[in-house]
Amino acid sequence: VQASNIVTLLTDFGDADAYVAAVKGALLSASRIAHIVDITHEAPSHDIAAAAWLLRAAYRYFPAGTVHVAVVDPGVGGPRRPIAARAGDWYFVGPDNGVFTWPLRHESPVEAVLLEARRYMRPDISSTFHGRDIFAPVAAHLAAGVPLGRLGPRFDDPVLLDLPTPVIKDDVITGEVAHVDRFGNLITNIDAGRLDKWLADGDARIELCGESAPLAHTYSDAAAGALVALIDSSGMLEVAVREGSAAARLGAARGTPVRVTRAARG
Amino acid sequence: VQASNIVTLLTDFGDADAYVAAVKGALLSASRIAHIVDITHEAPSHDIAAAAWLLRAAYRYFPAGTVHVAVVDPGVGGPRRPIAARAGDWYFVGPDNGVFTWPLRHESPVEAVLLEARRYMRPDISSTFHGRDIFAPVAAHLAAGVPLGRLGPRFDDPVLLDLPTPVIKDDVITGEVAHVDRFGNLITNIDAGRLDKWLADGDARIELCGESAPLAHTYSDAAAGALVALIDSSGMLEVAVREGSAAARLGAARGTPVRVTRAARG
Amino acid sequence: VQASNIVTLLTDFGDADAYVAAVKGALLSASRIAHIVDITHEAPSHDIAAAAWLLRAAYRYFPAGTVHVAVVDPGVGGPRRPIAARAGDWYFVGPDNGVFTWPLRHESPVEAVLLEARRYMRPDISSTFHGRDIFAPVAAHLAAGVPLGRLGPRFDDPVLLDLPTPVIKDDVITGEVAHVDRFGNLITNIDAGRLDKWLADGDARIELCGESAPLAHTYSDAAAGALVALIDSSGMLEVAVREGSAAARLGAARGTPVRVTRAARG
Repeated sequence: VQASNIVTLLTDFGDADAYVAAVKGALLSASRIAHIVDITHEAPSHDIAAAAWLLRAAYRYFPAGTVHVAVVDPGVGGPRRPIAARAGDWYFVGPDNGVFTWPLRHESPVEAVLLEARRYMRPDISSTFHGRDIFAPVAAHLAAGVPLGRLGPRFDDPVLLDLPTPVIKDDVITGEVAHVDRFGNLITNIDAGRLDKWLADGDARIELCGESAPLAHTYSDAAAGALVALIDSSGMLEVAVREGSAAARLGAARGTPVRVTRAARG
Repeated sequence: VQASNIVTLLTDFGDADAYVAAVKGALLSASRIAHIVDITHEAPSHDIAAAAWLLRAAYRYFPAGTVHVAVVDPGVGGPRRPIAARAGDWYFVGPDNGVFTWPLRHESPVEAVLLEARRYMRPDISSTFHGRDIFAPVAAHLAAGVPLGRLGPRFDDPVLLDLPTPVIKDDVITGEVAHVDRFGNLITNIDAGRLDKWLADGDARIELCGESAPLAHTYSDAAAGALVALIDSSGMLEVAVREGSAAARLGAARGTPVRVTRAARG
Repeated sequence: VQASNIVTLLTDFGDADAYVAAVKGALLSASRIAHIVDITHEAPSHDIAAAAWLLRAAYRYFPAGTVHVAVVDPGVGGPRRPIAARAGDWYFVGPDNGVFTWPLRHESPVEAVLLEARRYMRPDISSTFHGRDIFAPVAAHLAAGVPLGRLGPRFDDPVLLDLPTPVIKDDVITGEVAHVDRFGNLITNIDAGRLDKWLADGDARIELCGESAPLAHTYSDAAAGALVALIDSSGMLEVAVREGSAAARLGAARGTPVRVTRAARG
């Protein structure tokens, strides 16, 4: 896939320090890429699964050839490998710690390389800040058209996270809350495609924290303050309260179990 | 007005989720606009009046032809209409819920259209994320030069908020705090132009929360820690504490009444 | 040094107001610079020393010719002077209050001017928002190639902060924590170059808050949860806890004393 000259950044560096700016300076020093877009820098510190989820929700909306850099990297300076990959229409650059699990598992083709070619990195590489010294310059060169294969040798075993997946048993799917967003919406790990197929023309009842919600089309289908389930904008089952916080109302958090029960349409 | 190839974004999506990035991906996928500028993504959730105020403080400082996208949209998926408008030298894209009240009321000419032309939107439109699926691609096309009239039919009754306005009675104006900024400065809904005309060559005393402040020229006219009133950078009467927080000192918030009394210069 | 058409912004305006957007609108209205990069807008309010530290950690990673704008400006509207400077390979624009202490002291050559040429500013200059009305348009013009000397007359006495510096006495250096980052890492004011030279081939023991830490190479050299000292990515001695917060563990903050003791290698 042809490079797009766009680089995105996803980190746990926060917006109050100068680390993100140092990464952007290193990007622009390596190549005058056209656009640098922040996914977020408020990923929970050292939480690779949370960062993988955030990347999942954004990467596919970017033009083909976009280079996505993710630096949630508790193992920096240790044995974890710096990598780049192509997965489907996009490129990914960062530590080999599972942060790219979603595209590596769900897109194709996949091709991954170990970052070894020093000429695409900063001359001095610190032991604590590979985002600035390795990933940023490599991403800038990739975005500018340097072929993936020039960055280092191919390898075939990138780290993939063992994420919790929903369990289907007869008329019940048991999943869990995978992410709580700013509005207190609870996005589950239950995929709409899977849910639709399993439901066929049955009705669904969604239960969590001792309450139940009907499956609706959009927020406006519910009364203000009412609990509602719907398919969220990234294709996952979501539980929400119209103009309110489902997380606060239910006391739910990442990991809270969610049950979907199907019944023949009455 | 000619398109500027600049798009700004104002939302209540927060900086910790991936929603803003999905919007930016959709923008760049529709057109390689030159600049995407964040106004803020920390508008209070579902608070249309607060978002309208934030937009007011920023839109006119951008080049003519800039497209301002505002997505504070509690009615997404319901009957509220997606719109675009030209008001004065700028374009506006978002839900028809009053978020564009300030430019629609204070700029001219105004021309508004309903967003109906599907070819300028993403092919799949979710029921919960029009920011990504409708507003972003439409804004990108508008910024790239697509004429407003191509986006859909004209209409003449965009929603305008019924915002509190100051009341003048003899020698007293009664207004209120419209916004509290990060520094704890209290920006009121009392307009400098109106205030000046009414004051003529009289003196003004500003009172709120049982304290009074003189009308000064800039922060430095006050002693550190002293309460001071001045005309803020967006043309509104502001009450501040030099190098301190007027909000904390007075216990004031949005809606707190503010009185201005005029007296012949002594 | 040739202009790079890149401008960075460092302010204490926060991300929730529209002030930063107004600055960016003013930048783009003055010149269509290629890249606007945020260093941070979450510098502590009115804290010039903290802003100077944040600028220190980022400015040198940007391409030569980048214009760095810093607006932490408690004295706006008062007698403090608006300035621009070249220091080494970069340009700096903002108030003359010490925020540029690091580059002005450590880079060369240095050339500073008072901002007097009105034609490079917005036509109306407010008394409370020089970031938008003076610094942004001046920075845009500088980034687009206007020579420094056109902005106003040279001057030779820019304000420099009197920052705490480490004291060496025999086998002990006493410094302090200069910055606490998002991860709770404690970055001290003890410079790696100085430390290395003084240590020669001795061993170092780092002590603060009644605990001591060995000097390691990277986070991964420590057990998870263990206290460790290392040279941070900006060249300063740092005290950290692997995958944890040293600030929380030790109760340390900016200003906490740090002692380094050297001993002959055993």
